[in-house]
Amino acid sequence: MTVRTIDLRESVMARNDELAAEVRTRLSRHSVPAFNLVSSPGSGKTVLLERTLENLGDKFSIGVVTGDVQTQNDADRLAQYTDKLVHAVVTGGACHLDARQITTALNEIDLSKTDLLLIENVGNLICPASWDLGETAKVVLFSTTEGEDKPVKYPKVFRESKYAVLNKVDLLPHVNFDVDKAVSYARQTNPDLRLFFTSALTGLWMDEWYSFLTTAVTEAQGK
Amino acid sequence: MTVRTIDLRESVMARNDELAAEVRTRLSRHSVPAFNLVSSPGSGKTVLLERTLENLGDKFSIGVVTGDVQTQNDADRLAQYTDKLVHAVVTGGACHLDARQITTALNEIDLSKTDLLLIENVGNLICPASWDLGETAKVVLFSTTEGEDKPVKYPKVFRESKYAVLNKVDLLPHVNFDVDKAVSYARQTNPDLRLFFTSALTGLWMDEWYSFLTTAVTEAQGK
Repeated sequence: MTVRTIDLRESVMARNDELAAEVRTRLSRHSVPAFNLVSSPGSGKTVLLERTLENLGDKFSIGVVTGDVQTQNDADRLAQYTDKLVHAVVTGGACHLDARQITTALNEIDLSKTDLLLIENVGNLICPASWDLGETAKVVLFSTTEGEDKPVKYPKVFRESKYAVLNKVDLLPHVNFDVDKAVSYARQTNPDLRLFFTSALTGLWMDEWYSFLTTAVTEAQGK
Repeated sequence: MTVRTIDLRESVMARNDELAAEVRTRLSRHSVPAFNLVSSPGSGKTVLLERTLENLGDKFSIGVVTGDVQTQNDADRLAQYTDKLVHAVVTGGACHLDARQITTALNEIDLSKTDLLLIENVGNLICPASWDLGETAKVVLFSTTEGEDKPVKYPKVFRESKYAVLNKVDLLPHVNFDVDKAVSYARQTNPDLRLFFTSALTGLWMDEWYSFLTTAVTEAQGK
């Protein structure tokens, strides 16, 4: 039984990887960088995207795909910050987005008029790590209220990500969280990880993130 | 392919339910109530268990089974608060504990000398909802730093749980969290849910939780 499960999973994953490669080709043809945001529920993915749409939405045309298990709350929240359609994927119980869902969303997005694609994955630190969506890079978020050990407890997602955002730094005076230890755990898990420190809710410390996205867009467009 | 996946999943789940029923019978024969703690990473399951072992460990013999994807950090932390063996299950990537793992743990626990079993599931609000471990009840934790909407965004785990713990109430002055709204969402998802409000880290507001566990043990033992 175990072996059959693994075989089946492998063939599903192989099909996902094919679709992800197609997504990557489509995005690349249109010079659209895509970032896949992954975190626990409540780490602040939606708020980070709200702030990002507020701050970069006039400068760039930003496509948004957001995944949720059951509701489209996040999509509704994000729709307040952009004139563009926000693509809500309800996974119906599944703990991650997959490349097929991104393919479907891209069929409704005019990539020739898009500068940047931001994907908000389902709130989960485990499943999304295994699923390639065709993104340019995964960005893992964690927050100062979750404990420093998340990078060693959920190493796969930290290894699969090129970028990590430590959010809710505004709460540091009130929580028992050792930033140095968190950074050390993160680097130990993935030495190449680039770290951002943000407070998406207050909007403080966000400039490096905006600057990173701006650079990603301008470099993709060869400007 | 989809149908085959579902069929296979159903047979794996059916086998899990059989094992869970056996666990339930074993626990019941020895009058041991068992609570399965489920939450996102960082909501405070381990700290809640640390405080519980500190406060009730002299009064009751408490068995602990803790599940983690990759490490046994939580088990090591809990071992500091009890003389009994803490059973660490490393799931190797899986996003939940299953009844087979509990069966294996119970083979090493002398239930005739155990008053209470506490299970700390893998940090995840989605997968553990679907897996019966043979527990008396699931207890879902969420915290004041995660946003009020968790009960509607992850309804299954709130429906499958008899109890919910809203943790980190000490941070309420510093976060943007509406307790009334959270309670209303929780009740809307599951009207029978009994709610606890705790600050496991500071140890405040914990008495109702201790009193609940004490009652569960004494009632199970028919005292």
